[in-house]
Amino acid sequence: MSVTAPLGFRAAGVVAGLKDGGDRDLALVVNDGPSRAAAGVFTRNRVKAAPVLWSEQVLRGGRIGAVVLNSGGANACTGAAGFQDTHATAERTAGALDDSAAEVAVCSTGLIGERLPMDALLPGVDKAAAELSRDGGLAAADAIRTTDTVAKISFRRADAGYTIGGMAKGAGMLAPSLATMLCVITTDADLDAVVLDRALRSATAVTFDRLDADGCISTNDTVLLLASGAAEVAPAEAEFTALLTEVCADLTRQLLVDAEGASKAIAIEVVGAASAFDAVTVGRAIARNNLLKCALHGEDPNWGRVLSAVGSTEAVFDPDEVNVAINGVWVCRNGSVGDDRGKVDLRPRDVTITVDLSAGAESATVWTTDLTAEYVHENSAYST
Amino acid sequence: MSVTAPLGFRAAGVVAGLKDGGDRDLALVVNDGPSRAAAGVFTRNRVKAAPVLWSEQVLRGGRIGAVVLNSGGANACTGAAGFQDTHATAERTAGALDDSAAEVAVCSTGLIGERLPMDALLPGVDKAAAELSRDGGLAAADAIRTTDTVAKISFRRADAGYTIGGMAKGAGMLAPSLATMLCVITTDADLDAVVLDRALRSATAVTFDRLDADGCISTNDTVLLLASGAAEVAPAEAEFTALLTEVCADLTRQLLVDAEGASKAIAIEVVGAASAFDAVTVGRAIARNNLLKCALHGEDPNWGRVLSAVGSTEAVFDPDEVNVAINGVWVCRNGSVGDDRGKVDLRPRDVTITVDLSAGAESATVWTTDLTAEYVHENSAYST
Repeated sequence: MSVTAPLGFRAAGVVAGLKDGGDRDLALVVNDGPSRAAAGVFTRNRVKAAPVLWSEQVLRGGRIGAVVLNSGGANACTGAAGFQDTHATAERTAGALDDSAAEVAVCSTGLIGERLPMDALLPGVDKAAAELSRDGGLAAADAIRTTDTVAKISFRRADAGYTIGGMAKGAGMLAPSLATMLCVITTDADLDAVVLDRALRSATAVTFDRLDADGCISTNDTVLLLASGAAEVAPAEAEFTALLTEVCADLTRQLLVDAEGASKAIAIEVVGAASAFDAVTVGRAIARNNLLKCALHGEDPNWGRVLSAVGSTEAVFDPDEVNVAINGVWVCRNGSVGDDRGKVDLRPRDVTITVDLSAGAESATVWTTDLTAEYVHENSAYST
Repeated sequence: MSVTAPLGFRAAGVVAGLKDGGDRDLALVVNDGPSRAAAGVFTRNRVKAAPVLWSEQVLRGGRIGAVVLNSGGANACTGAAGFQDTHATAERTAGALDDSAAEVAVCSTGLIGERLPMDALLPGVDKAAAELSRDGGLAAADAIRTTDTVAKISFRRADAGYTIGGMAKGAGMLAPSLATMLCVITTDADLDAVVLDRALRSATAVTFDRLDADGCISTNDTVLLLASGAAEVAPAEAEFTALLTEVCADLTRQLLVDAEGASKAIAIEVVGAASAFDAVTVGRAIARNNLLKCALHGEDPNWGRVLSAVGSTEAVFDPDEVNVAINGVWVCRNGSVGDDRGKVDLRPRDVTITVDLSAGAESATVWTTDLTAEYVHENSAYST
């Protein structure tokens, strides 16, 4: 399962000693081919961690032979020395695999602004290489966790005879431009880098990119897609993209449910928008409204805070024509008081807010969480 | 003091019965002239409360004879009926003062999406009119409080012989486009509406507009400036603007310190920016970063979260040339690890974050608060 569900991939997750407590903290995923076509999407934050800068460079060739990932340190804001650390990690991985560092992607996650303990990390790379196996996917998924309470894995098999598998991590700093997260997706389908890139951008745009837990954009977000071609099947692009989107949606849902301190999983459906851009903009503005997120935590259907968030955007709408439903009850009709808010049941963990802008036919869903005292606690204590 | 410090103004604050608990909830400020020149700035939220729509209309004439303000209900998202309620409030005020409703501004604050109890509000207007006095400024400031723990008042006397006084309220939903707030400022200087408008826009742009407690833009924000001319002094515009800015800065500081649930008052000074716009943009991005706000609550000098926020903007900067100081310690130099973060003392309530973008000569300061469990608690329980 996970990244080793498709043919042609081995993985491992080991204890390198980067994290206190003796948990796994280093993962390795290797593509044994025959193909090495790959694609990636990265954070849009202009402050990019060293491994992001490195992996973007690797991807220029459209090929990835291996991905080495560590938790226990983001290697972000570490200057030229931090970039050398990433380079050394790729070289050590390449050495252990008798391969070229130019096709080794690197991902890191953890605290920003601290150098990685390379004396622990490099031996960890050797250890992971020695433990690579066809059933190492779950250990790899476990090794990339930070504050994640569970490992996130997914896979789908196509009738056409190929498989897509994936693992992800991310619990805080979830925002557009990819939730804070590392994600490696593998497939044994035989597709070239151009098709993989298009498919990955299409799939992430409607999944990871629409998860916004706290509006904070990470320096390290990375989603990689590796194709081995080992299933000897070349699916149609649309069909592959649809299945890839399913895997991404499944992982996104797992990230949402495990988000730091959250007690609600909130889907914001914006309908009747003049454009998809408007729908996403309005969805994100609502997802980022701290006051609303507090209200939902308190199970209070405070739709005024929804309208207040909608009104802060430049989207096309008339304030007197906006309708809002919370868990199916249309509490706001035509921008004013609608059905009895007392009828809204906010006790379930899943909450759906539907906003009808009455301005067109486009729609989008953005996912977020509530704002809780536990979120504050986890994030006031994280680095100390 | 407060709005009655300048000559030519009377005020009152009474219990109309809009709020539970018997606190004052209706205020009236009357300009006895001889001048009635006035200016106002309002929320940029496109979902505007009925009293905002009304008062914008009043201001088109450049004159205000009276302002009636209520807490206990925002009269926002209440449709045409809500607008009629505002109109009726202005008419009742005009009737009690034997004046014209066209020169009566209205302000409301409280929960969005509920009609005001007009059977309590209208008699409250009569009561306030009967209690108007030259020393009613403090009662008026008290009556506009919602979750504010203290009344916010300020005044300054100019050597030239005129006075500026003001009152404000606002504790949550503090954001740019004016913090959630109602503010009435009075002066006995003799200035026309055009000068007042320029002075007010200039003063609010660098004070209220740079306070961002939670990124949420209210539907009701209003700042009004009324000039009676009773001091028979016509100050130079620059001098008046400077004094007005002092009053606005004082009130802004009071709003910051009393913000809901906050335990820190944070000043974000952005220097070395290519433009003032960049400086404000970067300051706001930092002010809205929930993860940083949690870290500061935990007294953790997590400068990585500052850089991550800077990187989410389009401002001109090179990630390798950004410097960050927290309470005077330059913990980040050239985008990487700087001085020992252990030297940062985050125990005082006042926190200063300095970000040097090394991209120019412009600067701006934005104020915000930390994110606390108390904020979550207050805002999960507000409407119920």
